[in-house]
Amino acid sequence: MTAAVNDHNISELTAFSRQLTAPQGFGDASLIAAAPGAIRLLGGIPAPEALPVEDIGRATAELWQDRDAAVASLQYSQTHGFVALRNWIAQREGVDPRRIVMTNGGMHGLSLAVLTVVERGAAVAVEDPVFPLFLRALEVSTTQTLPVPVLADGFDVDYLAGRLAAGERIAAAYIVPDFHNPTQVTLSADKRQALIGLAERYGFYVIVDNPYRELRFAGEEQGVAVFNQSDRAIHVNTFTKTLGPGWRLGWLVLPDHLVDPVIRLRNRGDSHSPTVTQTIVERLVTGDGQWFDRVLAHANALYRERAGVLIDALHEQLPGAFETQAPEGGLFLWPRLTDDNIDPDALYQRALAKGVAYQQGAFFAASPQRESARYLRFAFGDRTPDELREAVHRLALAF
Amino acid sequence: MTAAVNDHNISELTAFSRQLTAPQGFGDASLIAAAPGAIRLLGGIPAPEALPVEDIGRATAELWQDRDAAVASLQYSQTHGFVALRNWIAQREGVDPRRIVMTNGGMHGLSLAVLTVVERGAAVAVEDPVFPLFLRALEVSTTQTLPVPVLADGFDVDYLAGRLAAGERIAAAYIVPDFHNPTQVTLSADKRQALIGLAERYGFYVIVDNPYRELRFAGEEQGVAVFNQSDRAIHVNTFTKTLGPGWRLGWLVLPDHLVDPVIRLRNRGDSHSPTVTQTIVERLVTGDGQWFDRVLAHANALYRERAGVLIDALHEQLPGAFETQAPEGGLFLWPRLTDDNIDPDALYQRALAKGVAYQQGAFFAASPQRESARYLRFAFGDRTPDELREAVHRLALAF
Repeated sequence: MTAAVNDHNISELTAFSRQLTAPQGFGDASLIAAAPGAIRLLGGIPAPEALPVEDIGRATAELWQDRDAAVASLQYSQTHGFVALRNWIAQREGVDPRRIVMTNGGMHGLSLAVLTVVERGAAVAVEDPVFPLFLRALEVSTTQTLPVPVLADGFDVDYLAGRLAAGERIAAAYIVPDFHNPTQVTLSADKRQALIGLAERYGFYVIVDNPYRELRFAGEEQGVAVFNQSDRAIHVNTFTKTLGPGWRLGWLVLPDHLVDPVIRLRNRGDSHSPTVTQTIVERLVTGDGQWFDRVLAHANALYRERAGVLIDALHEQLPGAFETQAPEGGLFLWPRLTDDNIDPDALYQRALAKGVAYQQGAFFAASPQRESARYLRFAFGDRTPDELREAVHRLALAF
Repeated sequence: MTAAVNDHNISELTAFSRQLTAPQGFGDASLIAAAPGAIRLLGGIPAPEALPVEDIGRATAELWQDRDAAVASLQYSQTHGFVALRNWIAQREGVDPRRIVMTNGGMHGLSLAVLTVVERGAAVAVEDPVFPLFLRALEVSTTQTLPVPVLADGFDVDYLAGRLAAGERIAAAYIVPDFHNPTQVTLSADKRQALIGLAERYGFYVIVDNPYRELRFAGEEQGVAVFNQSDRAIHVNTFTKTLGPGWRLGWLVLPDHLVDPVIRLRNRGDSHSPTVTQTIVERLVTGDGQWFDRVLAHANALYRERAGVLIDALHEQLPGAFETQAPEGGLFLWPRLTDDNIDPDALYQRALAKGVAYQQGAFFAASPQRESARYLRFAFGDRTPDELREAVHRLALAF
């Protein structure tokens, strides 16, 4: 024998693969096994009632009745993505359609962005608290983060500017500018401009993750043109929160110089998003120019009501227990426990025992500081008003 | 200013991204712009007539009429893939369902396999000639290859054994065992066993790419149990050639110890294959236990006829021009020019001018040797018998 058989152990994996921590499900705690009958306030999941099932059924039926179109939907298509779909997105984003690259949803867009602009071992500025699945996507390149506090008007750009002025260097900054997950705050227009200014000055990229942007039911938009007009921003979006996560269909708005590199990378993965799903979604959004906005209006009315019901129930059933900021959009509430003597872990266990499951704030911490642990994240999107009232009733029992 | 603005140049890309060569379309020359009216014998594309469009339409209509099921198909699902779909695949593969991980098609499976077991810069043995898109998928880890000749009974295992005995080391060997692309040969059962024996002895992985396996219309299966029973094989398959590329749905049969690493990796990409497409395909294949085999029988009768028409036309219209081996399955013919005085590049240009497009053999070369350039690859799957006869007529004009 010229060589011995290697053991089948972890050392045979690539360095790339070894550095990935074990997942705990798509959304980690989102997929915890809550007791039967528990009310789940867990994930950023669209309301079933907000999904345009009848319209999708109609568009799909039309597709399969047109044999040529049906066959085309079963064949290969281009990595860049469907042209009419990209044109429609480009018009809404205010950019040249060439700069739109279709993805398999927001996480996929984050992953492509990270692999393209974050060198192995480089540092990335992240919000604290942070959407924790971004940290997981980041692992394909690095685990080095620079946590930046989230203030009432979003990411603390001045804090980052100070760290950069002191000599720290980052490959990218990651932000969720609209209805930040989990805090729900929106980054102000001034700070958007200031952050892009820093990126241009110091030569890093801003990875702008914006899945909730279209779910606004109050307040004023702070604008995305500043991102879409910069060579320093990668703007990540998706149909996940509007037409449903099950499509796995999203898009990147890329600076012109990153279009080809991202397509090259995508070309080594699954080559292109499914022709079937792109065909159906393209038919839906381009068939009637007002359709998508009607879907949004219907959904946002629903989410406005649900957010209100949840806040009212907390005020009525648990007066004074939380500091609560009414969200202007999105799918989450992020209340802070007012009584510092309450142990959030014990409260969580009691709540589970009473039949209500939510995300603990500590899950979103990007640094060892314990402030996030004083918060709870309630996802209200896919719960009816009655379920939300009952959930708060159960939470009150846990107090 | 504490730092100057960096130029927006390629040096800002990650090393990972920089090493990827420019794509020329999904299938490179498959997407060349042939003249209008040209007959395209280019890609491994299923016949439109072989795709079960009516059945898909029916299953889809049933889904959208069942609101609960429809809503579920629009929501998140697990990275591992749909349970009933994996069970159905596992039964056909003869393995535990845990070892099946759903992918977005064969290329995606290859990419996941490479990132999981091929360290950066490591060498990988590849068939020569080779499916060139594998070399592209391989670029995510390495460009170092050890080309291994393909003989009449497939991959030259003795040649590889000699190189290994002489001290060369590889992280993986890549093979297409059934109806190899482009040569169409099938790897013999004895050589399958011998290759796995080498892999176990020297501690490398065999990446078994098998998209054409189900498209057999003659000859004897050489078996895949030897792969599925080995801890050293990653068996890559897909619904692309049977239910259509547009689904972007495939699967890996993994050794038990690679299941979690691959799921961890996939979890950083697009999280899971679309719930919508998995729902529809699961309903199709599990609803009627005989359905998928009926689809295959219909398709294979069509491909048998088309292969026969193409070979007969070559014999009739271009007698003696080619050495031709009748394929036992798959979608390609790989004839060799008998006259060494013919310039294959000039012939290709004349053929294009006459209105027939095929792949030149040189496209598949894995080494500088020029033998592959003496071959032509004709894809007959998606061309009707009349088109095939006309294509050969045009080719004869080009001679």
